[in-house]
Amino acid sequence: MRKVGIVGASGYTGGELLRLLVDHPEVEIKIATSRENAGEPVFRVHPQLRKKTDLKFVEPDLEKVAAECEFVFLALPHGSSAPAAKRLLEAGVRVIDLSADFRLKKEDYPKWYGWEHPFPELLDLAVYGLPEFHREEIKGAKLVANPGCIATASILSVAPAIKTGAVEKNRVVVDAKIGSSGAGTSVSIASHHPEHSGLVRPYKPSMHRHTAEIEQELAPLAGGEVKVALTPHAVDMVRGIMATGHSFLNRQVTNQELWKIYREMYQSEPFVRIVKDLRGLHMLPDPKNVVGSNFCDVGFEIDPHTNRMITFGAIDNLIKGAAGQAIQNFNIMIGVDERTGIEHAGVRPI
Amino acid sequence: MRKVGIVGASGYTGGELLRLLVDHPEVEIKIATSRENAGEPVFRVHPQLRKKTDLKFVEPDLEKVAAECEFVFLALPHGSSAPAAKRLLEAGVRVIDLSADFRLKKEDYPKWYGWEHPFPELLDLAVYGLPEFHREEIKGAKLVANPGCIATASILSVAPAIKTGAVEKNRVVVDAKIGSSGAGTSVSIASHHPEHSGLVRPYKPSMHRHTAEIEQELAPLAGGEVKVALTPHAVDMVRGIMATGHSFLNRQVTNQELWKIYREMYQSEPFVRIVKDLRGLHMLPDPKNVVGSNFCDVGFEIDPHTNRMITFGAIDNLIKGAAGQAIQNFNIMIGVDERTGIEHAGVRPI
Amino acid sequence: MRKVGIVGASGYTGGELLRLLVDHPEVEIKIATSRENAGEPVFRVHPQLRKKTDLKFVEPDLEKVAAECEFVFLALPHGSSAPAAKRLLEAGVRVIDLSADFRLKKEDYPKWYGWEHPFPELLDLAVYGLPEFHREEIKGAKLVANPGCIATASILSVAPAIKTGAVEKNRVVVDAKIGSSGAGTSVSIASHHPEHSGLVRPYKPSMHRHTAEIEQELAPLAGGEVKVALTPHAVDMVRGIMATGHSFLNRQVTNQELWKIYREMYQSEPFVRIVKDLRGLHMLPDPKNVVGSNFCDVGFEIDPHTNRMITFGAIDNLIKGAAGQAIQNFNIMIGVDERTGIEHAGVRPI
Amino acid sequence: MRKVGIVGASGYTGGELLRLLVDHPEVEIKIATSRENAGEPVFRVHPQLRKKTDLKFVEPDLEKVAAECEFVFLALPHGSSAPAAKRLLEAGVRVIDLSADFRLKKEDYPKWYGWEHPFPELLDLAVYGLPEFHREEIKGAKLVANPGCIATASILSVAPAIKTGAVEKNRVVVDAKIGSSGAGTSVSIASHHPEHSGLVRPYKPSMHRHTAEIEQELAPLAGGEVKVALTPHAVDMVRGIMATGHSFLNRQVTNQELWKIYREMYQSEPFVRIVKDLRGLHMLPDPKNVVGSNFCDVGFEIDPHTNRMITFGAIDNLIKGAAGQAIQNFNIMIGVDERTGIEHAGVRPI
Repeated sequence: MRKVGIVGASGYTGGELLRLLVDHPEVEIKIATSRENAGEPVFRVHPQLRKKTDLKFVEPDLEKVAAECEFVFLALPHGSSAPAAKRLLEAGVRVIDLSADFRLKKEDYPKWYGWEHPFPELLDLAVYGLPEFHREEIKGAKLVANPGCIATASILSVAPAIKTGAVEKNRVVVDAKIGSSGAGTSVSIASHHPEHSGLVRPYKPSMHRHTAEIEQELAPLAGGEVKVALTPHAVDMVRGIMATGHSFLNRQVTNQELWKIYREMYQSEPFVRIVKDLRGLHMLPDPKNVVGSNFCDVGFEIDPHTNRMITFGAIDNLIKGAAGQAIQNFNIMIGVDERTGIEHAGVRPI
Repeated sequence: MRKVGIVGASGYTGGELLRLLVDHPEVEIKIATSRENAGEPVFRVHPQLRKKTDLKFVEPDLEKVAAECEFVFLALPHGSSAPAAKRLLEAGVRVIDLSADFRLKKEDYPKWYGWEHPFPELLDLAVYGLPEFHREEIKGAKLVANPGCIATASILSVAPAIKTGAVEKNRVVVDAKIGSSGAGTSVSIASHHPEHSGLVRPYKPSMHRHTAEIEQELAPLAGGEVKVALTPHAVDMVRGIMATGHSFLNRQVTNQELWKIYREMYQSEPFVRIVKDLRGLHMLPDPKNVVGSNFCDVGFEIDPHTNRMITFGAIDNLIKGAAGQAIQNFNIMIGVDERTGIEHAGVRPI
Repeated sequence: MRKVGIVGASGYTGGELLRLLVDHPEVEIKIATSRENAGEPVFRVHPQLRKKTDLKFVEPDLEKVAAECEFVFLALPHGSSAPAAKRLLEAGVRVIDLSADFRLKKEDYPKWYGWEHPFPELLDLAVYGLPEFHREEIKGAKLVANPGCIATASILSVAPAIKTGAVEKNRVVVDAKIGSSGAGTSVSIASHHPEHSGLVRPYKPSMHRHTAEIEQELAPLAGGEVKVALTPHAVDMVRGIMATGHSFLNRQVTNQELWKIYREMYQSEPFVRIVKDLRGLHMLPDPKNVVGSNFCDVGFEIDPHTNRMITFGAIDNLIKGAAGQAIQNFNIMIGVDERTGIEHAGVRPI
Repeated sequence: MRKVGIVGASGYTGGELLRLLVDHPEVEIKIATSRENAGEPVFRVHPQLRKKTDLKFVEPDLEKVAAECEFVFLALPHGSSAPAAKRLLEAGVRVIDLSADFRLKKEDYPKWYGWEHPFPELLDLAVYGLPEFHREEIKGAKLVANPGCIATASILSVAPAIKTGAVEKNRVVVDAKIGSSGAGTSVSIASHHPEHSGLVRPYKPSMHRHTAEIEQELAPLAGGEVKVALTPHAVDMVRGIMATGHSFLNRQVTNQELWKIYREMYQSEPFVRIVKDLRGLHMLPDPKNVVGSNFCDVGFEIDPHTNRMITFGAIDNLIKGAAGQAIQNFNIMIGVDERTGIEHAGVRPI
C-alpha cells in the first residue's frame, strides 16, 4: 500500500481522485487537503463519497504532507502548483501535478501563460504524463506533469493523422466541444445554469493555452513543427470533451492505410479505443460513451470532397483528462497494471 | 465463479447488468441474449463496453441458457418474463427477474396489470428482492422478483415514516420525479429529445402500477393497509428517481425520534445512506448524487406548518432500481459480501 | 403612449420586461436602471435585444425616474422595493412591484419574511396583482403587488379544487418543480451548471415563503383558512414551474363537476388554459408548453384509489410568473386589451 | 389579408409556421394539412397554440389548397415537395418550399441527393430564398426555395470571410453544432432522450448535403469555386445551429478591414446582427441568444497563430433556419416590411 496525499481535494478533480483512490487496491489515502473545508468530512463536499470514506479534509500543510506521503497528487490552480511541487520534491515525495505548471518548456510559459517559470530546473525533471507517448519515462519519474484535458483528447486523436506524413502540418484545426465541469467549482455568470443550458459558446477561440501542449507533443511525430488551430466551445454537458480535428491531406490516403496506423498506435493501449464502426448509433467517438471511464475513444473519416481527414477524440475530462490519467501515471510509477483502480467502463446512458 | 446468463441484454438494464457483471469477481457471463442483435458484439449496442468484453449477443434459446447457467437475470418486458422464468426454474436455474411478473400477489395482477397471472404457483416461490426488507428469504430463494425502480425509492424512503406509527396511513403522497432511461430503449414521441428536454410531464398520475408494490411492502410495517397516492413526473434527466413523500402526522414527532428510527433501520445497511445535513449544498437526497452507484439516499424534514413529514428517496433507476439491486440480490444468494461488484461511489458531477 | 420605467432592469425579470415592453404598442420606455451596468447598452447584458433597442442602462435615480415616468416596474430584491415604491408613489407614479414587499398583510411579514414591514400604510394601498382574482381592484390601483412565481402557478391550479368545497383544507400538498431562472442572475454553487444539471434538489421543502401568498388567496374561496404544504424542487430546466397539487376529498367528485368549475373560472380568462385531453402527448399541463408565453395551463385528475384530486399548474416563471403578469396588470391599469404585447404563443419545442 | 396554406403542418416547422402566421397581420390561414392528424385541432399536436387558434388539420388535398390559397408554404419531406409544388404553381399559387427540392441546380441533385430532379424546368423558376443575397429576385418569385438551416448559418457567417478575397477557397472548414429539433418529429434511437442528452455526436461528418447549397451561394462572392469542409455534430440543445468556420488566410487581414466588410454586408440587414463585443459574456454569437427569433448572429476572430479567420454564425434552426425565413421571404413577396410578424427578440434565458 502506497501512502498517498491529495493536495487540493475539494474541487472536481480532487473529488474524482478521492473517488478512484478510495477503492484503489494499492493506495492508502493519508491526507486530503482543502483550506476552505478543513475539518469537514470529504462527503460534505463530495456527497457521492458518503458511506465510502470517513476521511476529513485537513489544512494544506506541506511539511505534514511530505512527512506522511510517498506520492502526492497536486490538484491546485495553475501557478500555485509549482512552489508546492518544489517543496514536496525536495522532501523526496514523488509528485503527479495536475496543473499546467510543468507541462511545457521554459520558453513557452511567457508566450502562453504570461509568466516566467519560477523553477525552470524542475522542468527538466518533469515528464509529460501522457502514458501512450511517454510510458517509459513515467516509470522512473519524480515529477509527472499530467496533461490538460483538451490536450489529451486532441493529441491522441490527431496523432494518427500526423503519423501519415500526409497532412499539412501548419493548419491542423481542432474544433473542441467541452463540458462545464472543466472549469472547476468556481462559480461565475459563465457557468450559471440559466446561461449554460443549451448553449454553444466559443471559449478562447484563438490562442488557447492547450495549443502549446498539443503542438509540443505532435511535433516529434511530425518530424518538425505542427501548427494547431484550436477553438473550444462550451456545450451543454457536464463531463466530456470532443476534439474534432480537420486536417488537410497533401496526397490521397486510404482507410486501410489509416486503420493500419491506428492499430499500430493504439491496439495494445489499455485506454485508447478505435471507434469507427459501419453501423449502429455509435460509429464514431462521442464523449457520452466514455463518461465515468478513463477511455479515450478515437476515430476518423476521410472527406473526399476536400481531401480532408476528420479526426475525433472523446474523453471524460475529469478522468482521462485529469484524475484517471493521473492514476494511470501513478500505476506506471509504482509498477502495477496500468488499469488498476481505473478499469471501469463508462456509465451509460447518462 | 458462477455461471451467469442475461436474457434480454440489449436494453439499458441489460447494459448495466453487463457492465457490472463483466467486472464482478464471482461471475462468468456465459450468455447474453438479444433477438434483435444476435451475432453482434455487445459493444455495438453498449459502446461503453468496447475493450471491456468481446462477448456477443446470442439468440434467446432458453434450453441453451438453462444448460450453461446456474443463475439467470431476466431483463424482459412485463408479461414475457413469467414463462421464461418457469422454464428456467424447472431446469434448476436460480432466477432473478427484473420484470414485474413476480412482485405481487396473485390477486393484485388483475387489478394493477389487467391480467390473470399465468403461473400463480410460482408466486409462492418468489421473494420480493428488496434486501433491506427480505435479506434472509433472498438467501435461499430460487426466484427473486427484483423491485420496480419507483417502488424501491418509495418504499425505502417512506418506510421510516410508517415506522413512526404516527402517519395517516390512508393518504401517503409520493410525488416522484423520474429520468428518461426508466422507459427503456423503445423510442416514441414521448421520449423524443425535442419533446423530453426541459419538461415536467405527469406520467400516469393516478393508479400507477408501482403503487401496488409500495403498499404491499409498507403494510407489514404499518400493521395494516397503507394507501399510497403516487404521481410520477418525467423530468429532464437520464438516470435517477426522486420520490418525495408527503405524510401527515397525527401527533407531533421530533427530529430526534426520526433520527433514531432511521438509524435503526439503515445505519448498518450497505446501500442506504441517511442524508440530512445542516449545511452545504447536499442537505437532502438528490438523484444526481447517486448516479452510477447502487446507493439509495434517504432523508426527511418535518413541516411544522401542516404537521407533515416530508421524505426523500433518491436512486439511480438503472442500478439500485434495477441492475445493481439484482446483483445485490445475487450476492446474497451466493453468500458473498453484498457489495461485491457494486461498491462504486456515484460518478459526480455528471 | 405611456411613459414607463424599469427599475432593476439587468436581471432576468428586467430582461423580460424590456423584451416585452420594447414591442408594446402603448409603451415608451423612458428609463431602465442598473447600478452595475449604468452606461452600457441593454443588449450587452440582454443579448437578445441587440438590433431591437439602443436603450442604455442608467443609474437608479428615483427622482429622475419619478420625473420622467407615469408607470414604473420595480424589479428589485425583496426588501429594497418597499422604500423605492414609497418614493415613487409619493411622486404620483403608479407602481407595479415585482418583489414580495407588498403581497402580504402586515402581520405576515414577521412570520414569513422575518421583518416588520417598514411602511404598513402602503399595504392598504396595494392590490395583489393576480388578474384572474383581482381584476377590478387592479384597474384603479396605484400600487400592484405582482404575485410570486410559485404562488401564481399554485393559486391558479389549486383554486378549482378549493372551489369544490370538497377538499380537506388543512392539508393541500403542492409539490413544485422549478427552473433555474427563478433564482435570478446571482451566481452560487447551487446554480453552477455542473451542480444544476440533471438534478432534483429539494429547495426549502417546508415553510417556503410563497406559502403565505397561496394561503392568503385561497382562503376567500374556501370560506376559511387553507393550509398549504408546499415543497419546491429544483429540476433541470431554465424556465418553468410545475405546481402539482394533491388534495384529499371528503366526498366523491366527478369529472363533470370539475369541468364545470374549471370552465366557470377560466373559460373566459385570456391567459388560463384548461388542459385535460384524452389523447396525444399533451394531456396535462407541462411548463414546456408555455415557455415564452404568458399562459398558465391548468388541469386535473381524480385518483379513485386514494380519493384524491391531483391538480397541475404550469407557467413560464419569468412571464406569467413575473414580467408578463406585470404587463398584464399594466394593461388592466391603462384600460387596454389585457393581451396587448403579451399575446405570444409559447415557443415550442425548446 | 393574404390567403395562405401550410402543407405539412404537423411537424416542427409546420408548428412554427402556424405560431408565427396566426399573429401575422397580413395573413389569413386558410388551410393547414396533415394526413396523420386530419380532423384534429392543431393545438393537439402543437399545444402552445391552445387558445391561439381553433384551426383544424385537414387532409392534404392540393386541389382544395390551390382553390383557397394565394400562397402556400410547403413543409414536406425532401422529394415529396417537388410534385406538390408543381401542381400548385400550375394553379397560379405562389410557393415557398421549405424542402431541398428547389435549392440546387439540376446537376447537383444526382451528386448530393442521389436522384435526378423530376421537374428541372421548375428549377429555373426557383429563387434561393436567402433574402440577404437574393432580395430582389424574391420579390417577384413564383417559387422560393427556402434555404437549409445549416446552410443559412454557414453562408451568412462565412460570406464576409470570402469577401475579403484573402481566404484559401478550397478549404473552408465549417464545424457545425446542431440541435435536436432539426431532425423533425420522426422518432428514432438517435433522438431518444437517453441517447441524445449530453452528447456530441458527429452527424454525416463528410459529404453533408448542405455543402452543395453553401458552395453554390459562396461561389459568386468568391469569383469562383469554393470548397466547404462541413462537419455537423449533434449537441444537447433543442433549437439552434452554430456554424464555426475556420478559414485560412493567404495574407494578413485586420480587424478594421473585417469590420468594414461586415458592416457593408450586414449593417442594414434587419435580421443579421454583428456580434463581436469586447467584454461581457456575449462577445461572440451563441445560438442560445437567438432562440425564438429570426436573427442570425455573426461574428469573427482572427487567430494570428495560424493566420486563420474564425467565423461564427448562430441561428434558431426552426426560425431563421426554416419557418421565420420562409415568412421573411413571404413578406418580401407581398411587399410589406420584411420584419412583419417575425420581429420578436429571442426568448432568453431559455
